[in-house]
Amino acid sequence: MTDTAEFPPDDDRARDTGFEAAPTGWLTPEDIAAARAQLPLVYVDAVPVQVDESGDVVSVGLLLRATPLGSMTRALVSGRVLYHERVRDALLRHIEKDLGPVALPQIPASPQPFTVAEYFPTPGITPFHDPRQHAISLAYVVPVNGDCRPQQNALDLAWLTPEEACSDTVQAEMVNGQGTLVRQAMAHVGRLD
Amino acid sequence: MTDTAEFPPDDDRARDTGFEAAPTGWLTPEDIAAARAQLPLVYVDAVPVQVDESGDVVSVGLLLRATPLGSMTRALVSGRVLYHERVRDALLRHIEKDLGPVALPQIPASPQPFTVAEYFPTPGITPFHDPRQHAISLAYVVPVNGDCRPQQNALDLAWLTPEEACSDTVQAEMVNGQGTLVRQAMAHVGRLD
Amino acid sequence: MTDTAEFPPDDDRARDTGFEAAPTGWLTPEDIAAARAQLPLVYVDAVPVQVDESGDVVSVGLLLRATPLGSMTRALVSGRVLYHERVRDALLRHIEKDLGPVALPQIPASPQPFTVAEYFPTPGITPFHDPRQHAISLAYVVPVNGDCRPQQNALDLAWLTPEEACSDTVQAEMVNGQGTLVRQAMAHVGRLD
Amino acid sequence: MTDTAEFPPDDDRARDTGFEAAPTGWLTPEDIAAARAQLPLVYVDAVPVQVDESGDVVSVGLLLRATPLGSMTRALVSGRVLYHERVRDALLRHIEKDLGPVALPQIPASPQPFTVAEYFPTPGITPFHDPRQHAISLAYVVPVNGDCRPQQNALDLAWLTPEEACSDTVQAEMVNGQGTLVRQAMAHVGRLD
Repeated sequence: MTDTAEFPPDDDRARDTGFEAAPTGWLTPEDIAAARAQLPLVYVDAVPVQVDESGDVVSVGLLLRATPLGSMTRALVSGRVLYHERVRDALLRHIEKDLGPVALPQIPASPQPFTVAEYFPTPGITPFHDPRQHAISLAYVVPVNGDCRPQQNALDLAWLTPEEACSDTVQAEMVNGQGTLVRQAMAHVGRLD
Repeated sequence: MTDTAEFPPDDDRARDTGFEAAPTGWLTPEDIAAARAQLPLVYVDAVPVQVDESGDVVSVGLLLRATPLGSMTRALVSGRVLYHERVRDALLRHIEKDLGPVALPQIPASPQPFTVAEYFPTPGITPFHDPRQHAISLAYVVPVNGDCRPQQNALDLAWLTPEEACSDTVQAEMVNGQGTLVRQAMAHVGRLD
Repeated sequence: MTDTAEFPPDDDRARDTGFEAAPTGWLTPEDIAAARAQLPLVYVDAVPVQVDESGDVVSVGLLLRATPLGSMTRALVSGRVLYHERVRDALLRHIEKDLGPVALPQIPASPQPFTVAEYFPTPGITPFHDPRQHAISLAYVVPVNGDCRPQQNALDLAWLTPEEACSDTVQAEMVNGQGTLVRQAMAHVGRLD
Repeated sequence: MTDTAEFPPDDDRARDTGFEAAPTGWLTPEDIAAARAQLPLVYVDAVPVQVDESGDVVSVGLLLRATPLGSMTRALVSGRVLYHERVRDALLRHIEKDLGPVALPQIPASPQPFTVAEYFPTPGITPFHDPRQHAISLAYVVPVNGDCRPQQNALDLAWLTPEEACSDTVQAEMVNGQGTLVRQAMAHVGRLD
């Protein structure tokens, strides 16, 4: 159901702009730049977790990425909701895009997110910041059962305990407030340090 | 904090397009038409309620509106989240716009909505439908304590019991799935018939 | 991890009293009768569902039971939380007890229930009623992946669509407010009729 | 609606046992001791907050109490749900008991708690611990509008910013995991440090 036609070879460039490449006739890059300067965009954030048979969170999956300047950051699965796409389909698409096709995520039955992360272009209004745009992100904890293989521009996927993911060291490796989002997720599942 | 400068005299026209009038330099109507055809927009839906001292919902407030064709519909408080606006500020602004400046709404402390209503331009994908656009709406139950006076193009505000609001008669007077959203809200507060 | 020693042969009798049989030294039946007359008891209610790969609910599982008077009722998975038992372990135990050992339930990662159903011995205070006791039940939607085989005193497990589960016919076959709880669950997952 | 007859002069003794004094014919102290050793009890925890007009949390109210050994601890509003009492009424009763009769709390319209805190008599199973009993506590964030006056055995009520309430100093003054519960509450309202 995830249309791979949405991910042409220039997807990395698309990622740089924060937008997936899209069929002809869609917004031009100029239109998109105009829209992103004047409309909040809808995003989803997924916190991938592994759980035991009682549903208790055992580990949290964080992507390792290299910044253009060569430093390393850890990140959540995150991306835009497309026009005419359901939130749950966007969630599945971004998880498969980042964790591979056999991650077997358990997409939540309910659309109720555990929080809404508001990424402002201006820092300090909320804990979340995105210099490129105003993004309103629905955040979900998503258990994955399968075999995760980081895709695209992620170097690695590391499974950390909830305690490690909330530690100062790991928090310092996350940017734009995603460290806070991880701790909010751990609070929600009862695993905040 | 609600900038009334956002609501110039041509606001009714703006409402017809679903967008508030905005300062010069903002998206032109053409840009907006282009964006709304290609990006999901962020909305908030508020279900205004009156509660007793134990927080139990006593009544639900529905706006009465005339359609262009002269029939009557009942509606929730609903509107777009603007660029660089927090969700909670959008919620307050739309409630004050529709219920007046002394409604004294209790905006929720948590950004977690009780549901996310996905209004698709195509009917039948979800229970929600918006022929104009793809809107992703964060839905909240909002107790109001003050004196509500319907503003602008609402003819009246009626306070109904939860049972009345979920009745077939009232449900038939709501459009685009808002009747379903009222029932989801009543389910959330434990007052579904 | 589910201690089958908790389910000795006299379990059906235990069910009649609403309490599982317990190791020697535990509350006597008289103590339990006294406690249940004077303390609210903690329960869990599980709404078993089947979901598609996007997490959308496809069907709802309802148990078919015969009443002592010979009529048929449909019921959710429901049961008490034991002393020193975590809520998530109680949820797993009751699901395995009612749906069999290979139902493979996805116990929620978060302890946040979608609602709290308050079963009062007096009808009419809430939509929920339990003539035997005051039970406060944490309610969860639980996707199951495996093969469900109704156990013990359930005659059958029927998978119904959300629409069927919310229909008047099926609602009339549920007692003590569990029909309302099913509809609250469907509202929560965005599948209320 | 809060029956002050439930709080006779020996209430402090009752508090020491964790149970409110109750009408004749109720459980004897021996029965209660037996029940609390063998059944989980239902509690509510309230995190009192002050909010601005947009619902954003400005401050968190913590009670200051002296322990029998003379040291000071900070605590949330917390207490048992009585037989035949609704959760929302228990929440109102305990808030009025601890914060006084004119605190004007906004009891949540929805029974959905932001988390369930499981206090085990054995430390380490969850972040929550109660040496006296197994308590399962429904936790709510409750905005208060009025004038709070600490009652009974609380020495003071301090309003702290979310940052202060989550600081190491204040966290060290809270016991049995209530510091964790405050941070979970701040995560839920988007104000985790």
